[in-house]
Amino acid sequence: MGDVMEKFSRNQRVSAITKLLVENPNKIVNLNNFTEIFNAAKSTISEDVVIIRDIFNKLKVGNIETISGASGGIKYVCGVSEEEKEKFAKKLCLILAEKDRIIPGNFIYMTDIMYNPEFVHEAAVILASNFNDTEVQYVVTVETKGIPLAYEVAKMLGVELIIVRRDSRVTEGPTVSINYVSGSGKRIQSMSLARKAMKRGSKCIFIDDFMKAGGTALGIVDLLREFNSELIGIGVLVDSMENKSKLISNYISIVQFNGISEGGSAILVPSKNIEK
Amino acid sequence: MGDVMEKFSRNQRVSAITKLLVENPNKIVNLNNFTEIFNAAKSTISEDVVIIRDIFNKLKVGNIETISGASGGIKYVCGVSEEEKEKFAKKLCLILAEKDRIIPGNFIYMTDIMYNPEFVHEAAVILASNFNDTEVQYVVTVETKGIPLAYEVAKMLGVELIIVRRDSRVTEGPTVSINYVSGSGKRIQSMSLARKAMKRGSKCIFIDDFMKAGGTALGIVDLLREFNSELIGIGVLVDSMENKSKLISNYISIVQFNGISEGGSAILVPSKNIEK
Repeated sequence: MGDVMEKFSRNQRVSAITKLLVENPNKIVNLNNFTEIFNAAKSTISEDVVIIRDIFNKLKVGNIETISGASGGIKYVCGVSEEEKEKFAKKLCLILAEKDRIIPGNFIYMTDIMYNPEFVHEAAVILASNFNDTEVQYVVTVETKGIPLAYEVAKMLGVELIIVRRDSRVTEGPTVSINYVSGSGKRIQSMSLARKAMKRGSKCIFIDDFMKAGGTALGIVDLLREFNSELIGIGVLVDSMENKSKLISNYISIVQFNGISEGGSAILVPSKNIEK
Repeated sequence: MGDVMEKFSRNQRVSAITKLLVENPNKIVNLNNFTEIFNAAKSTISEDVVIIRDIFNKLKVGNIETISGASGGIKYVCGVSEEEKEKFAKKLCLILAEKDRIIPGNFIYMTDIMYNPEFVHEAAVILASNFNDTEVQYVVTVETKGIPLAYEVAKMLGVELIIVRRDSRVTEGPTVSINYVSGSGKRIQSMSLARKAMKRGSKCIFIDDFMKAGGTALGIVDLLREFNSELIGIGVLVDSMENKSKLISNYISIVQFNGISEGGSAILVPSKNIEK
């Protein structure tokens, strides 16, 4: 206690606070955390935060919001400029149009994209920034390919991820299962979720890699109903326009897939429905 | 071109550079990126980076490494102090010892932990910091529960994730499948991976949620052999000591599971094998 407490410069504090905020998106951090770490007055930390907020806003890379009240503090909210969104969507279109991505059955091979943290992070920021203002409590996905993207969106929104299984596993206790009809394949499939995976009466968003007719999303609505919970939004990386009559209408996507060209490569364009 | 270029303060640059580095772990960023964004000399940016490196080192929250040469630059490498590792392991032990986590069959319910970005991020930094000095090219996991953790480790190491499937899916092209014997259950299971998922001759680490006898890890070794690739490390969240004779020896874990107490809760202790 008699020791001389270490002093930190404003530059050092600004760097450390930036790191902690960016690593904990949408989580409220009380300023007292920082006054203790840095042995600094609350007013000093507040000034540090203003600097961080200003540069994030200037560069359009998110915002620092202030939450007042007893459990208040500050939080980092992700964001991305319109230019960066468009740049990313165009890059994705080019990559997915590579000829050797077409797999027998006219599928696009996109596993490498869905499992590449650099792509996943950028896509997640774009999708998550649409739901920052909602009261979402869980991000839901169906195994397997959309899991990393859904995880990153959950992280950006500061909420838990829920992975719906295609079978029920013994290690998760009692499960709820439903059957649904995939809109494109007309096949009956099932999905299941552990009873204890979700609090009843929750608001959820559904994140996936690819949307065809929307049968899976409709199945999620049914499954959530069993938990007295509600689907308040849907976001996908690729929206297939080959299925013109969608079973659902309210969703966002990053790129649209318009079938395979005569030359044998996928035809893709940036989606128009990524609003603010 | 005739415009007056915007000027940024050191505080602002330090914040923005910190954000970009922390969001791209283990990725080399050329300093020219920053000189352009901030309209600043390279020497100025270098001084900014020194400030960031100093505070990261001081707080033991990682390092900024300098890579020389034509394709050189700087990169953020994740790190965590011994105290933080222990604090996290102890917290995890307490949470997993909650009585209502025991599921018939003496499993521990830990899905909520495995899908909670806050926990996953902390665990991933601890595991990844053991492999920063290796030449790892892929982080491999088997679906489903370990995927978020493996994804975060891959992100921290700046490499791609590979998810081995329990069945082969039509949308991934030709696949390689192997059978393996689970060391605990003595059951024969299969795992498969798309031919194009991995470059031949790669170095990989395997990340999973729970290790019993190590049968799955041994299966991964066999599968990787089909790709002429090598398993150079293994990291798991929970290591079950109920299986004393392990099929593999070289791995790290965060906590050890020592069975169920007479009172009906899991007995757990922090692992001793997290070196560094």
